[in-house]
Amino acid sequence: MTTVAVVGPQQKGNVGTIARAMKNFGFADLTLVDPPAIEPGDEAYGFAGHAREDVLPNAETTTFDELIAAYHTIGFTAIPGEDEGRHVRYPYRSPAELADSLAVDAERFDAPIALAFGREDTGLANEELARMDEICSIPASADYPVLNLGQAATIALYELRGLADAPTQHAPRDRAAVEATDGLYEQLDALLGATDHPEEKRPKANRLFRRVFGRARLTGREAATLRGVFRRATELIEDDY
Amino acid sequence: MTTVAVVGPQQKGNVGTIARAMKNFGFADLTLVDPPAIEPGDEAYGFAGHAREDVLPNAETTTFDELIAAYHTIGFTAIPGEDEGRHVRYPYRSPAELADSLAVDAERFDAPIALAFGREDTGLANEELARMDEICSIPASADYPVLNLGQAATIALYELRGLADAPTQHAPRDRAAVEATDGLYEQLDALLGATDHPEEKRPKANRLFRRVFGRARLTGREAATLRGVFRRATELIEDDY
Repeated sequence: MTTVAVVGPQQKGNVGTIARAMKNFGFADLTLVDPPAIEPGDEAYGFAGHAREDVLPNAETTTFDELIAAYHTIGFTAIPGEDEGRHVRYPYRSPAELADSLAVDAERFDAPIALAFGREDTGLANEELARMDEICSIPASADYPVLNLGQAATIALYELRGLADAPTQHAPRDRAAVEATDGLYEQLDALLGATDHPEEKRPKANRLFRRVFGRARLTGREAATLRGVFRRATELIEDDY
Repeated sequence: MTTVAVVGPQQKGNVGTIARAMKNFGFADLTLVDPPAIEPGDEAYGFAGHAREDVLPNAETTTFDELIAAYHTIGFTAIPGEDEGRHVRYPYRSPAELADSLAVDAERFDAPIALAFGREDTGLANEELARMDEICSIPASADYPVLNLGQAATIALYELRGLADAPTQHAPRDRAAVEATDGLYEQLDALLGATDHPEEKRPKANRLFRRVFGRARLTGREAATLRGVFRRATELIEDDY
């Protein structure tokens, strides 16, 4: 299951444009975080085309925290990190690379996915991107890489339209429940504590863990094994103090 | 040289949206056939983003006959012909196929190209498509394949950005050197040893590490950070024995 999440949209027209692109490319599930009030007859409906009949009226509103908790989140940004020095937004994938990697992993990866887009003017904030599992950026002209929100979502949904086809001839094998990966991240943070990792560097290290394991799309067994190894290490270190 | 041609646009906002997508993907030359009057400050400018500074004010107006005469024309349509019996709209290419074929032919093909889009409500007419050199159609949901004009042009320009050949905002990628990831795997094996991981399970755990971090495609910095955290943990455990 894939939801399209829009965080803090300001213009109703863009919500309608995104709803239309969703219907054009076979997506049905729209999630809004902190949206403007949307009602039949307003600009959102005006831009939605046939999506005014289903995608738009069926949109659900949630909080950012709930979004992060419930989905494997992929955050879109026009301005990715350029190098390893800015790793909130790095590494990132292009939509085509993301489509490829999700297709490769489709067999074993059936966690619900959220494709998350940010505000018209400032996009997703660094604090928001830091909590997401993967980063995606649309390649555009270096002179003017900032796409309009509705246009960015349209391109992303076009490239990722394969996600909307239920790929079902292969049974999903296994996936790490969100709780299992969250437990892994907590354990890694505890390991940082046990190893006296410099306090000011801990958020950065935790973000790095989330990026790395988010991209790897852990199975439940992998998450449990990793968590077990790091718990044992943490306990052994703490026992001796 | 590639121009983007819009035939008979009715809504100024769509012209602005197309101008913005052009600037986002490095195209500069906009040609309008039978457009509404467009003036600074109106809706076209409102949707154009930074393209209000150049693409939009530099747009040229021409006739359909002149367009056909001056360019190798590629007409976009949501509803292509299904078979050879409807050959005004058949055969057609997808934007990705078109990008590939134009790249293959780039060396010998230096006619100016026009990417032509039609009206919001009815698109390009059969009589117009019949006079064009190639037909392109964007793959979309069979239930609702009709894209909004601005969104269709955005996807087309994104796929065909190679024609404009503008450098993108994405920096060249970094990959962890093989030695860096090998060092990480050795360190993880040492951590297994320090934590008395059952001997018979060590090869399996090592394989799991390799799979997980392999899928994540670590950057050099990520590999180094992870290795550092696990080395410190291993040292702390071993120091106390």
